[in-house]
Amino acid sequence: MRLVQHRFINNATWLCYGGLVVTTEFQRARSADAKQQREQAILDAATALGSRSGIRSVTLTDIAAEVGMHKSALLRYFETREQIFLKLTAAGWRDWGGELVPALRGLADASPAAIARVIADSLVARPMFCDLLAQAPLNLERNVSLESVREFKLVTLDEVDAIGAELTRLLRLGEQQRVDVIATATSLAGALWQMATPGPEIEALYRSDPGLGHAIVEVGPRLTRVLTTLLEGMAG
Amino acid sequence: MRLVQHRFINNATWLCYGGLVVTTEFQRARSADAKQQREQAILDAATALGSRSGIRSVTLTDIAAEVGMHKSALLRYFETREQIFLKLTAAGWRDWGGELVPALRGLADASPAAIARVIADSLVARPMFCDLLAQAPLNLERNVSLESVREFKLVTLDEVDAIGAELTRLLRLGEQQRVDVIATATSLAGALWQMATPGPEIEALYRSDPGLGHAIVEVGPRLTRVLTTLLEGMAG
Repeated sequence: MRLVQHRFINNATWLCYGGLVVTTEFQRARSADAKQQREQAILDAATALGSRSGIRSVTLTDIAAEVGMHKSALLRYFETREQIFLKLTAAGWRDWGGELVPALRGLADASPAAIARVIADSLVARPMFCDLLAQAPLNLERNVSLESVREFKLVTLDEVDAIGAELTRLLRLGEQQRVDVIATATSLAGALWQMATPGPEIEALYRSDPGLGHAIVEVGPRLTRVLTTLLEGMAG
Repeated sequence: MRLVQHRFINNATWLCYGGLVVTTEFQRARSADAKQQREQAILDAATALGSRSGIRSVTLTDIAAEVGMHKSALLRYFETREQIFLKLTAAGWRDWGGELVPALRGLADASPAAIARVIADSLVARPMFCDLLAQAPLNLERNVSLESVREFKLVTLDEVDAIGAELTRLLRLGEQQRVDVIATATSLAGALWQMATPGPEIEALYRSDPGLGHAIVEVGPRLTRVLTTLLEGMAG
């Protein structure tokens, strides 16, 4: 906070030459810039905590402590913890689509199996995104403003369009088919990831009890198998 | 509570003829019976509240109020709200398997499409079970004793076996394939149900904004399409 204020004072001093209007506009810009830096620091702190221990257990107080702010100060940037994690889910969609679309474009072997593997691998490589995918419709979309939900949905629909366009190009999928594939991939990745990470105690129970061996879930192989069969069937 | 106590006194009176040991045993049985009735009343109250407003918003205090007990008294029967809903999820699996297995046995047309429709319809007909299916790995399995998780898993594995055996009989699916189908069906039903019931305000937003039309999810048709393609590919 001290650093930002210091820089702000310097800018204001420098801007005295430019007259009042310019100063105010520049100050507003600087202030907006500082606000954005603050927001990003909060999102980074939530990411660090969420990847360490799972989204479920991270509270607003934890995030405030991690970023070194008071909780009341943090609430000037975000409405709720759910808004923070919904923003991270939107960023996760952008990041996922941003990698998946070029990966699909660059595929030498465009068989359903190869496409399924690229989709599954890109999800498995993003454990916190998988966690967020399951949390979003259950918890995150339900404790934020309508405007936050709207912004989030527009990002996801945009990425679904971009990924879907590649699926149509590669396998001639119809619009309903491609949305079905992406919904299956993201829903399964979310649910299977939750099942696969039940916490150390329960995992130890599954491994120790011969009757519970089937409760151990491997996300990548199952996701790849299901998507392969689905894409093969659709590409028919 | 008054009714149970009244019956208890009558039984004790009657048992005086049988001597002390018999009385104690009978009292213990009666007491176990009363305990089970109490537990069932709590589960029924949680079911009523959960189907009305979704599992997510139901607290232990709500359940205690619905059943007409103090929260402290309720905690003598269940460890946490999660244990109550995990018991209901296990009951949901029994109920689902109990309908689905005979329905699959009785199928005149055993095509992948017909089988997919029976599975999807049986899930769509159980909205609270869909809600619980999504909640279980995220929230319910994480705030109960290991013994509760173990009991729950044994029930689900048992039902997966019974449903899976029918899938093998009908379509000659291998063990991995049949588990993949059931995991896909239950994971998708859970996730899609959550997406399809975002609450009245958000649903109104989706319907009013032309850019968000695709955010509206129809569980039954999508689940049927995905399972049909999956079963067709596996039966291939």
